[in-house]
Amino acid sequence: MIDVIILGNGNVATQLAKAFIKSKDINLVQIYARSSSNKYLTKKKIPITNSIKSIKNADLYIIAISDDAINGFSEKLNFKNKLVVHTSGSVSINDLKYNANKGVFYPLQSISKNKKISFKKIPICLEAENKKDYKLLEKVANSISKKVYHINSEQRKSLHVAAVFVNNFTNHLYKIGKDICDEHKVDFEILKPLISETAKKITKLSPLQVQTGPAVRNDDKTIKKHLKLLSKKQQNIYTLLTNSIKESKKDN
Amino acid sequence: MIDVIILGNGNVATQLAKAFIKSKDINLVQIYARSSSNKYLTKKKIPITNSIKSIKNADLYIIAISDDAINGFSEKLNFKNKLVVHTSGSVSINDLKYNANKGVFYPLQSISKNKKISFKKIPICLEAENKKDYKLLEKVANSISKKVYHINSEQRKSLHVAAVFVNNFTNHLYKIGKDICDEHKVDFEILKPLISETAKKITKLSPLQVQTGPAVRNDDKTIKKHLKLLSKKQQNIYTLLTNSIKESKKDN
Repeated sequence: MIDVIILGNGNVATQLAKAFIKSKDINLVQIYARSSSNKYLTKKKIPITNSIKSIKNADLYIIAISDDAINGFSEKLNFKNKLVVHTSGSVSINDLKYNANKGVFYPLQSISKNKKISFKKIPICLEAENKKDYKLLEKVANSISKKVYHINSEQRKSLHVAAVFVNNFTNHLYKIGKDICDEHKVDFEILKPLISETAKKITKLSPLQVQTGPAVRNDDKTIKKHLKLLSKKQQNIYTLLTNSIKESKKDN
Repeated sequence: MIDVIILGNGNVATQLAKAFIKSKDINLVQIYARSSSNKYLTKKKIPITNSIKSIKNADLYIIAISDDAINGFSEKLNFKNKLVVHTSGSVSINDLKYNANKGVFYPLQSISKNKKISFKKIPICLEAENKKDYKLLEKVANSISKKVYHINSEQRKSLHVAAVFVNNFTNHLYKIGKDICDEHKVDFEILKPLISETAKKITKLSPLQVQTGPAVRNDDKTIKKHLKLLSKKQQNIYTLLTNSIKESKKDN
């Protein structure tokens, strides 16, 4: 059994705690959280402390707090000869300021507190300063996920930006699609099979291969028709993305 | 049995032919195509003609050719008292120039010739000039799909633009995500679970509700970090979409 303590009480902390409680290889020793009111953890009899001094011994400490707070919080910790990791996609391993072994345990998913998720399919990106620490992180990650990757801080930064494009920005395009439907009294439901098909296609083929639409066909007649139907803001996004698709085609 | 003839030999024509051949309610009488070399149809013993004069009698004629060609092609047809429809999302019912009853039979999906698709889940958007014709179209659509919608030409136009956002543009964002991964030697596989989760989320919740990321959090520190990692072109897209997300938040 590997003894783990989670520092934090947000979405990632809660979902990790749930996954560790289910895992046979992990002993979730304690949670550190400013507020100790977590019904789920109380029910599962996981001790919660709000005092850094009362944090117990463990093999691994996982900081799961907001990106901005990691640097400042890590300065308060004093775990000599311990392995302490954060869970952020955008924070470098060197932003950890404590006097202890450092690492990163980054689950790449958009995690919401109340939405049930299965960690098994969530990729976990690991980084450590030495082989021994990496092996430990790998064991912990393998105990909850089938997809474990070795990713250094530079790679993780780029992965985080790429995730913004494929997740946050994509979701915003769905929002614009829904706006257009709402404005013209069309049921957004009609577009949902297309949305899931679009996401499914690239699991087997590269996005460049499966690009369709007026931009890649250089169908300027349809593009003009479309622009007429859009608001100024929507037009700006339509034009920029259309030109970007046209340029991608030229580059290949 | 409803007698149907398809005019065209492209992706949509081929997939429709396959679906009609499987359907118990439809008798696929003939295909009109400039080239008569279609192995699948020959195997299924569906007659193919390349002469407009040799087109047989049917209850419904479905024009499944490229958007640009519909108007010109429809002028050549002379089917008095027949129902003739096109399958395009971006062409109005009034762009059909023949002397016959008009309609639209628009399957809303990105259809590729060689990719197996099940029409059952593909929404089919119908339009006709009178109730009798609409009923016929509805029967034909119901025989191959479970999702049949009444959509007029104005609505279909907006649906087609919305589809460009949620399908073509989304696929381009996947492409940019893959570019960023490739540039930094990160396996694009890591992002695939996130991509499918993002598409799945909006089947139950509205895209506005589930928006996450630095833009919606007004996390300008992370945004600045991200911009540093991107090419000029990628920066332009990042900035425009980030500002659009920020504005959407304000509006709500």
